[in-house]
Amino acid sequence: MATSKAKSIDRNTQPVIDQLIAHTASDMEAVNELLLSRVGSHVEMVPEIANHLINAGGKRLRPMLTVAAARMFDPEDKQHVSYAAAVEFMHTATLLHDDVVDESDKRRGLPAPRKIWGNAASVLVGDFLLGQAFMMMVEAGNLEALGVLSKSAAIIAEGEVFQLAKSNDLTTNVDEYFAVIKAKTAALFEAATEVGAMAGGADETAREALKQYGAELGIAFQLVDDVLDYGGVSGTIGKNVGDDLREGKMTLPVLHALQHATDVDAQFIRKNLGDPEADQATIDRVIGIMKSSGALQITLDRAYEHANLAKKAIAPYLERDGAQLLSEIADFCVERAS
Amino acid sequence: MATSKAKSIDRNTQPVIDQLIAHTASDMEAVNELLLSRVGSHVEMVPEIANHLINAGGKRLRPMLTVAAARMFDPEDKQHVSYAAAVEFMHTATLLHDDVVDESDKRRGLPAPRKIWGNAASVLVGDFLLGQAFMMMVEAGNLEALGVLSKSAAIIAEGEVFQLAKSNDLTTNVDEYFAVIKAKTAALFEAATEVGAMAGGADETAREALKQYGAELGIAFQLVDDVLDYGGVSGTIGKNVGDDLREGKMTLPVLHALQHATDVDAQFIRKNLGDPEADQATIDRVIGIMKSSGALQITLDRAYEHANLAKKAIAPYLERDGAQLLSEIADFCVERAS
Repeated sequence: MATSKAKSIDRNTQPVIDQLIAHTASDMEAVNELLLSRVGSHVEMVPEIANHLINAGGKRLRPMLTVAAARMFDPEDKQHVSYAAAVEFMHTATLLHDDVVDESDKRRGLPAPRKIWGNAASVLVGDFLLGQAFMMMVEAGNLEALGVLSKSAAIIAEGEVFQLAKSNDLTTNVDEYFAVIKAKTAALFEAATEVGAMAGGADETAREALKQYGAELGIAFQLVDDVLDYGGVSGTIGKNVGDDLREGKMTLPVLHALQHATDVDAQFIRKNLGDPEADQATIDRVIGIMKSSGALQITLDRAYEHANLAKKAIAPYLERDGAQLLSEIADFCVERAS
Repeated sequence: MATSKAKSIDRNTQPVIDQLIAHTASDMEAVNELLLSRVGSHVEMVPEIANHLINAGGKRLRPMLTVAAARMFDPEDKQHVSYAAAVEFMHTATLLHDDVVDESDKRRGLPAPRKIWGNAASVLVGDFLLGQAFMMMVEAGNLEALGVLSKSAAIIAEGEVFQLAKSNDLTTNVDEYFAVIKAKTAALFEAATEVGAMAGGADETAREALKQYGAELGIAFQLVDDVLDYGGVSGTIGKNVGDDLREGKMTLPVLHALQHATDVDAQFIRKNLGDPEADQATIDRVIGIMKSSGALQITLDRAYEHANLAKKAIAPYLERDGAQLLSEIADFCVERAS
């Protein structure tokens, strides 16, 4: 599977994410305009908070996936633009609520909105964006696509509750971990590519393939996020390293380390898991354990497996416009943690 | 307008709310079954929290309004049951989020879910219920009704943000207060009766009338709630009296008292508004000021005006099944604060 990537580098020296940005640029401009037009409100705090996130320079990966999925087929009207904007609003709403749930201080390198405007405003503006997302979907006029997105909204929330219920729960198993990430992360990737395919008028088989692609990509994406939270395999990434440990999140690296690290090391993780005050020395030692026990590498290996499943799902459609990019994006999503 | 009520008491000695409950009973049983079936989840915390609220004995006024509005016309299939359940889920989601926003300790006489399960779970289960509400609406298959409810979801959240932005803001004016309550409360009443009328197959004029009825009833309802938060005009109600003062909510009683109480009294309110620690003696004195300045009576008078506007809106349809009950419910909603 790595060969397709090697070929693409020969063909185009741009990083694949930049190629995807270029490929979707004209539609994404329309998406951005729609997003900005829909956060307008006589209540100043609404656009303030929404724009803080919208302009904070997220990559807009999910709406780009919607647009790219649609463009593999034949999007006649501009439905895919509305769907992509709805997907991004749903994602933004989730970020606002997650920061409250996780008591996060930072988001996309800036202070989390809840640190500036408070938890209450973050919850409510999230609700507003969710309402706007559904309004946009209604205006686009496709009940089936609305069904896909509303179902994913419920599944995402359910997954987040499951994660919360499982936090600090040392009995959590790998199946439960995958159930959490399929719901909290992969459900929106899956919906994003499925509604994209629908907007493009894909047939049932192709729609199922794109749905599968999104689901597998989303799983890979979250596995990688969970590696990055311990600094990545090579340990060079500057994210909020250690947050998952402090929040007691039972991610795959933790589950693996608890099983496979030395007794002393596993005990050290158990002791510090869920301690919001865990200091840098503690985090550093945990990261060391994650590496020495192979927990990060194993998690990354699983991410590659799911990225490959994503690529396999769209393999029958590789001759279609932009499909090769989507295939390569799967590798890109995993490589950021290597 | 009061005569119709006098007549109804001659005709039927049951309180009108019990008559409405009886009138909608068979459909509401289906609504309740639907609600219970839709909170099911492999994640135990989801039904636990949802059922805590669903079973806490709220009156289910909003879904009853949807059912009653539909039954004034000719609801063929059971669409109004789905709409009513969606309305109740939206309301429950709002309660869960409001308790987090207001840092409330109690809800419907029981500990607020956030006191039992925490803020995080309350936010997330609210999101889950919102997703379920939209899924039910999608399954009911009416895009227009979905548009009405998704718009109201955005408006409610926007109203809550506006209220938050205006808390403790002594420059708040009466127009702004009405903008807040129209959005945060009346929008869902309005949507509830409008989608009910749609499910009943009401024509455009009747649908507009029911929409208007719901909007005015919702305004009256919130005005009354804002009176009850200071104990009601006769001061016998045992709600969480004084919460609005402690939260710095600029409700009509506060706005009126700040304008019309003596300088000393107005100063006392200004001093204590938004103080979460305000003690019972302070609340008692504020209630005294609210009464002596006429602030509660004025607010109640405004509630009667809007109740009358609600009754006027459905006056052309009084011969229809249950319409008289809806008319009388408007009085009932206000009388609870007299």
